[in-house]
Amino acid sequence: MPNPCVSSSSMGWPHSPPKPSASCLHHWSFWLAPPPGFDHIDMAECINRGITVSGAGDAFSEDVAHSAVALLIDVVRRVSEADRFVRSGLWSLKGDYPFGSKIGGKRVGIVGLGRIGSEVAKRLMAFGCSIAYNSRKKKPSVPYPYFANVYDLATNSDVLVVCCALTSATHHIISREVMKALGKEGVLINVGRGALVDEKELFQFLTRGEIGGAGLDVFENEPDVPRELFTLDNVVLSPHKAVLTPESLESVFQLVLANLKAFFSNKPLMSVVHQE
Amino acid sequence: MPNPCVSSSSMGWPHSPPKPSASCLHHWSFWLAPPPGFDHIDMAECINRGITVSGAGDAFSEDVAHSAVALLIDVVRRVSEADRFVRSGLWSLKGDYPFGSKIGGKRVGIVGLGRIGSEVAKRLMAFGCSIAYNSRKKKPSVPYPYFANVYDLATNSDVLVVCCALTSATHHIISREVMKALGKEGVLINVGRGALVDEKELFQFLTRGEIGGAGLDVFENEPDVPRELFTLDNVVLSPHKAVLTPESLESVFQLVLANLKAFFSNKPLMSVVHQE
Repeated sequence: MPNPCVSSSSMGWPHSPPKPSASCLHHWSFWLAPPPGFDHIDMAECINRGITVSGAGDAFSEDVAHSAVALLIDVVRRVSEADRFVRSGLWSLKGDYPFGSKIGGKRVGIVGLGRIGSEVAKRLMAFGCSIAYNSRKKKPSVPYPYFANVYDLATNSDVLVVCCALTSATHHIISREVMKALGKEGVLINVGRGALVDEKELFQFLTRGEIGGAGLDVFENEPDVPRELFTLDNVVLSPHKAVLTPESLESVFQLVLANLKAFFSNKPLMSVVHQE
Repeated sequence: MPNPCVSSSSMGWPHSPPKPSASCLHHWSFWLAPPPGFDHIDMAECINRGITVSGAGDAFSEDVAHSAVALLIDVVRRVSEADRFVRSGLWSLKGDYPFGSKIGGKRVGIVGLGRIGSEVAKRLMAFGCSIAYNSRKKKPSVPYPYFANVYDLATNSDVLVVCCALTSATHHIISREVMKALGKEGVLINVGRGALVDEKELFQFLTRGEIGGAGLDVFENEPDVPRELFTLDNVVLSPHKAVLTPESLESVFQLVLANLKAFFSNKPLMSVVHQE
């Protein structure tokens, strides 16, 4: 029998699954956790006990990247807001609608240039955006400028796209200071985890117009979303569905199946998570 | 004094400007007409009278292309619909939200591969879509498959993006038959002119679920939008604002200025419209 392992994939999600304790892993367990991040798994205890953790690999990366780009375009070009305007019948009454701004030329700072962040960068390059990034370490093979801290990245960006994992080091990485650095025309996109952003500060910044807008797929206490957000026009809200397409679910099911086969044949697992 | 000319740009838009008659063109006139198309100018009479017509050139192309891609992603990934879902407080009550589908791998048919269509194609390639197109003639330098008629293009597409000019030949080019060929999972995006699509048929197709969804920036009798659309979840509505960013307006103002200078110096005009 091979060593026990946990695969970060199952049908419990999007309602938060119970956090598995390492001691229960004498049998196979699966949680479908949207990437990025393994904050729902006690990684330290898994390492202590020699339990291998495998993730969703690339199965979700494209769809999350597309959602991030969709939220970015939606906020910057005011797509959902304009849809509400037309649906309310105001176009023929009020006429002109406030402009969005141009996507091309925007300086986009990516917080966490992993699989998802790299896919976001690739697509936004095609829109004529310039890309910079922050991550734990500079990546030698990456052509984009690197900023060692998120504050400096925000200072030099029109849009921040947050797609890093949630760890104790990244909790509230988008702080009051970072939002201030992003500035009143700045746009924040979060497809990582709600707790990466200091939500209470964000609502203040949005309400006071001290930040331009936000596209949020994740929230600190989801599915409970602060009601103050519901009336704001400069946010686009999404029910943690960035990963969710039938195609990406099929991919992850195939990955789980392949990992099961590998596990019972004593072969190496795929998409193993290496905790640093 | 050089020959009279009309530049397709002014502040009358987005409320439809009065159609200028060629006889009034003894002085300069400007209309800001969103591309594509010159259906608001009596081109035949201009040609008869030797009046040169110049358009917006590339000034708007990128922004219209971005709007087309934004509408496509919005409909396929259900972004505005999800935003309404969260804002209505339903996430914590109802839980799971219906999936959108994957952008990557979609077969996108572009109706009118001019400046805008080419920019749309370039961006969607970065999303892993495959591109085919229909236009008046096959373009020898273009790598995408060509379909000589829109029906065949629709049959071989998951999404149709309509960005051709409105002429007598393209009026209602998206007909009942074309919608049927696109099929009940198919998505229609229109950033051209409302009358390119048989709107009455489209509403029937949308209501009966015989087409998957639509993203519409233009309407036949805008700003009056058929109220039946307001309650449909499978459409995203936009108030003919695909071209509208401060940056694109600045570009078009610069173009008008350059054309004025060229005109009064008896130099060749830029972005002259050559009617075929």
